[in-house]
Amino acid sequence: MIETSEYPSLRDIMIARQRIEPVIRRTPLVFSEHLSDRAGFEVWLKLENLQIAGSFKIRGASNRILQMTDDERARGIIAVSSGNHGRAVAYLARRLGITAKIVVCDLCPENKRVAMRSYGAEVIVHGDTQDDAQTHAEDLIAQEGYTWADPYDDLHVIAGQGTIALEAFTDLPDADMIIAPLSGGGLLSGVALASKAVSPNVSVIGSSMEIEPGMVRSLQAGKPVHVEEHPSLASSITGAIGLRNRCTFPIVRDLMDHAVLISEDSLAPEMRRFADNEGMIVEGGSVTSVLAALSPEVKERQPKRAIVVISGRNIDLATFHQVTQNPEMIS
Amino acid sequence: MIETSEYPSLRDIMIARQRIEPVIRRTPLVFSEHLSDRAGFEVWLKLENLQIAGSFKIRGASNRILQMTDDERARGIIAVSSGNHGRAVAYLARRLGITAKIVVCDLCPENKRVAMRSYGAEVIVHGDTQDDAQTHAEDLIAQEGYTWADPYDDLHVIAGQGTIALEAFTDLPDADMIIAPLSGGGLLSGVALASKAVSPNVSVIGSSMEIEPGMVRSLQAGKPVHVEEHPSLASSITGAIGLRNRCTFPIVRDLMDHAVLISEDSLAPEMRRFADNEGMIVEGGSVTSVLAALSPEVKERQPKRAIVVISGRNIDLATFHQVTQNPEMIS
Repeated sequence: MIETSEYPSLRDIMIARQRIEPVIRRTPLVFSEHLSDRAGFEVWLKLENLQIAGSFKIRGASNRILQMTDDERARGIIAVSSGNHGRAVAYLARRLGITAKIVVCDLCPENKRVAMRSYGAEVIVHGDTQDDAQTHAEDLIAQEGYTWADPYDDLHVIAGQGTIALEAFTDLPDADMIIAPLSGGGLLSGVALASKAVSPNVSVIGSSMEIEPGMVRSLQAGKPVHVEEHPSLASSITGAIGLRNRCTFPIVRDLMDHAVLISEDSLAPEMRRFADNEGMIVEGGSVTSVLAALSPEVKERQPKRAIVVISGRNIDLATFHQVTQNPEMIS
Repeated sequence: MIETSEYPSLRDIMIARQRIEPVIRRTPLVFSEHLSDRAGFEVWLKLENLQIAGSFKIRGASNRILQMTDDERARGIIAVSSGNHGRAVAYLARRLGITAKIVVCDLCPENKRVAMRSYGAEVIVHGDTQDDAQTHAEDLIAQEGYTWADPYDDLHVIAGQGTIALEAFTDLPDADMIIAPLSGGGLLSGVALASKAVSPNVSVIGSSMEIEPGMVRSLQAGKPVHVEEHPSLASSITGAIGLRNRCTFPIVRDLMDHAVLISEDSLAPEMRRFADNEGMIVEGGSVTSVLAALSPEVKERQPKRAIVVISGRNIDLATFHQVTQNPEMIS
């Protein structure tokens, strides 16, 4: 179902858009006056925080799950998640009448576990890291035969995430840059494939945390490498890319123009400014792309019109209060 | 420019839509899972909190100001506002290169004054109530000849606000109810005119504060009456409708099906739930319509599919924190 053996084409992404249309929301692309003023170029926000189940993840997950066979569905779905992918899978499973197990590690915020359970999924907490959760999920698949729903390293998932850029360029065809959070690379790969198909002159920028950014370290090493996981306000974008990475590592390597590394300290103050100016509560991962848009490295590239992907809203209100009320206290 | 001497027609609202399209944002209409679950019918949110300048007010203001003559523009605009209308007028004035004075009373929140000044408007604080501010503006017009930009009691403003419902029914033609905040009645009038033109079977519901609701008291009295103003978390929808009301009183009287009265105590907890579930910070006035959707009076009418107008996001973050962190402390 993917046109080439390597990367999804724009046609694959267009087919994905058609396939997932009934279950996702076409999110708005809105001009941000205050960010444009600060950045010195036009900043347009692609509001995946308004997406169903609270993040962009449902796009990729639905493009994969809607192509599962009856037999694959009947076996039930299993997924590993730092939160958002699990939430999307749980939502879709309920909607399609499939049972779902989501394996998370201790770092997964409580509000995300509650949301997954509220959609009827079984949430299994295992270990201190995503890697631990991953190993446990593989054991469960071997023992009980569930169908695996990969969070990012899957061409159908990548094609699904690419629909974000397809929609954004449909709304603003003369954008010359797109900035998205870079974690496992599913979002960045899909966005890069669609954007470069629109024009090779579109700059594709990733934003990662400066502490142990899995993809950036792997690119530096020339192959997927292991990184330690750390607690972060941007919990949705931390962690490694998988030592057996097949898809996102080469796509990001070949198509991303630059990755901006974001400091933990800068997240809370920007989360506060975003809430104050845009009236929206977004998770730390989303804020990294906003900060990347304001970075000297991006300014140097002299974009005229940048699309910034606001990836999700899944932060619990207590944490939001805590970090934005006294942003100077976070460090 | 308005087709009949009485009410704007749907054609007037369609012309307004065409006129204001370059300066406003076509806001999304999104399904709310958690509100639908709680209400027992489909709840769709028309997100005017994402509108330019933070509220729906720019629709009506731009439909009026874009029709001003060169002479009217040259004299400069003056407006009276509890905040949102002034913010919209200030934004438009800057964009069109017109000078603007906004008269507010002490009740106008500081963040709204700051926003108006940031757009280059002169903000004049006068008196304790909107009535005081109004009197002062009339003095200034008599003395200095500014062009008046009415916040609601103007057929062009009403036609502009009607574009909200026109957009919402374009997106969801089979909605059978629309709920919007009811204050001076500009929003409610425009929404009612468009909705009843779509179908007389659409229920049009207003939401007002139970303490001194200007329009509701006036409807009860059969004529515009004075009400006292009170500080409220829903500051954008408090106050009287003007003893010389010409337009909104008869339109609301003739077209609104029911007004739901909302208690002050219920605002903060619902503002918190909205932020938690939707990830959006909205002002108290917006929350009244959410609460109306959940009221027994609305349930009794057995809607299947209701549009709830989320009118604006202009609450300052400090107030949001204060009232949502300890919602039980508000009374």
